Amino acid sequence: MSAEQRENLDAILRQSAFPADSDVNEQRRQLRKLLSAQPLPADVTVTAAALSGVPTAEITVNGIDPRHVVLYFHGGVYVLGDAFLAADLASQIGRRTRAKVISVDYRLAPEHPYPAAVDDALAAYEALLRNGTAPSDIAFAGESAGGGLAIATLVNARDHGLPLPAAAFVMSPYVDLTLAGATMDTKREADPLLSPQALQARVADYTSGQDATLGLISPIFADLSGLPPLIIQAGTNEVLLDDALRLAREAATADVEVTLDITPRVPHVFQAYHAILDEAAAALDRAGQLLSAHLASAERVTA
Amino acid sequence: MSAEQRENLDAILRQSAFPADSDVNEQRRQLRKLLSAQPLPADVTVTAAALSGVPTAEITVNGIDPRHVVLYFHGGVYVLGDAFLAADLASQIGRRTRAKVISVDYRLAPEHPYPAAVDDALAAYEALLRNGTAPSDIAFAGESAGGGLAIATLVNARDHGLPLPAAAFVMSPYVDLTLAGATMDTKREADPLLSPQALQARVADYTSGQDATLGLISPIFADLSGLPPLIIQAGTNEVLLDDALRLAREAATADVEVTLDITPRVPHVFQAYHAILDEAAAALDRAGQLLSAHLASAERVTA
Repeated sequence: MSAEQRENLDAILRQSAFPADSDVNEQRRQLRKLLSAQPLPADVTVTAAALSGVPTAEITVNGIDPRHVVLYFHGGVYVLGDAFLAADLASQIGRRTRAKVISVDYRLAPEHPYPAAVDDALAAYEALLRNGTAPSDIAFAGESAGGGLAIATLVNARDHGLPLPAAAFVMSPYVDLTLAGATMDTKREADPLLSPQALQARVADYTSGQDATLGLISPIFADLSGLPPLIIQAGTNEVLLDDALRLAREAATADVEVTLDITPRVPHVFQAYHAILDEAAAALDRAGQLLSAHLASAERVTA
Repeated sequence: MSAEQRENLDAILRQSAFPADSDVNEQRRQLRKLLSAQPLPADVTVTAAALSGVPTAEITVNGIDPRHVVLYFHGGVYVLGDAFLAADLASQIGRRTRAKVISVDYRLAPEHPYPAAVDDALAAYEALLRNGTAPSDIAFAGESAGGGLAIATLVNARDHGLPLPAAAFVMSPYVDLTLAGATMDTKREADPLLSPQALQARVADYTSGQDATLGLISPIFADLSGLPPLIIQAGTNEVLLDDALRLAREAATADVEVTLDITPRVPHVFQAYHAILDEAAAALDRAGQLLSAHLASAERVTA
């Protein structure tokens, strides 16, 4: 059953694979089409809002009285996607943590290269704190580049002396824009969606002449000490697998609490396909349980 | 509270640290003293038994009707410890999985170097299968060298064409007897118990002229494809941390389902100190839940 689900999904994604040679506008259209194919659950409400001038999508699940906030960062190699397109996946996390999700519509490259996204993410988090939300009631979450941005924002917030959220949950994080992961090569055939060539074609849009090894661009190279618990999920059919594995290794070596949760033979951000893939819902359930425990235990510490 | 617990434990362990220059008999006495300090829970029964001529300790928790079997491999760098000394920690896993634990008293080096331990472990597993226990009802577990032996035995069983157990749970696994982990150096001060020197002093007892990079000696170098789900736990105050991190990376890259669960600032096999360390009981709870889910889901698949 699940093997059949995986094969179906793989075939669908191979049709949507991003060619290395298409332009940004074509890729933006393609991602919109892929993500819009899945309708938003009927009980989810999405509202445009803002935090300190940074536009956001506020995502709530009807009937859930939110006790926490998930600050969410969408994916798309810092060039594609938006806060609203991520609403379905983000709502799945809100649903499992009894949280309101605030999806940050950070500025995209190439129009707004680094550090625009990093600045917007930090500004949104600072505004959330300033509005009176306790850091222990906040978790970060993100997928792909949004996972990288979540980690970079933890590093950035720590370096700015801000209190840190209770935990962060990152799905298939893109944390090394030098593309040095070993799986860039070894998982090239297995990955139905991404390739090193397609990623490479968009790196310069974001780095725009800056060094890709900067910690806020590629947090795999940042000092990760002092970060809150990290929950890192990835599939094994992705060229970005080694980003997740190396992030876990670097964080653990820096004395960070880490849960690395690897699902075999599923693609990049497989959690997005929860409606047609059993492994996706199961992974979201596990992450939701861990996040909820961290939010609750942070509550106890600060009460 | 927990920081105080961690400091107390660290101080206790520093008194028990294994000097590189003591002999095997002195080290065996010391480990026995350390492990015997914690009395066995009153509701745990330990019985000497055997599987295919390999001596075992059968460990049951009164009042629990065992539905599964945990095949347990104790630690001690293949030179120290025994199946009975591990009974308390092993019983904690049986308690959380409603399983009978069979702790394998494999032969130790230097009297019995490699492949004696590997042969005994495989013989015990084969006998368990031959006695009619379904592989889907079996989980492997082990600590330190026993964690390495658990992984090596999965590889060995796969290569012998045997059906594999539902999952394996390894605590601070010792999977690289070449001692090439980066944390051999970076965690030397933080580790209260082990050092590269103390480990190195015992490597040759087990390898006895064999190449330490052999997959059944150091399973980090083995082909890990086809292995069942692995649950890998470690603390960050240990020189063997990188063994756990690299095992997770190698297994994930080989399409194995992996949960890596890292607890900050706790020592090697910290789960053994569950009576005085909150993090230990919490980690055992998490592992127990995952193992139980794997045992139950394997049951469904084969039913």
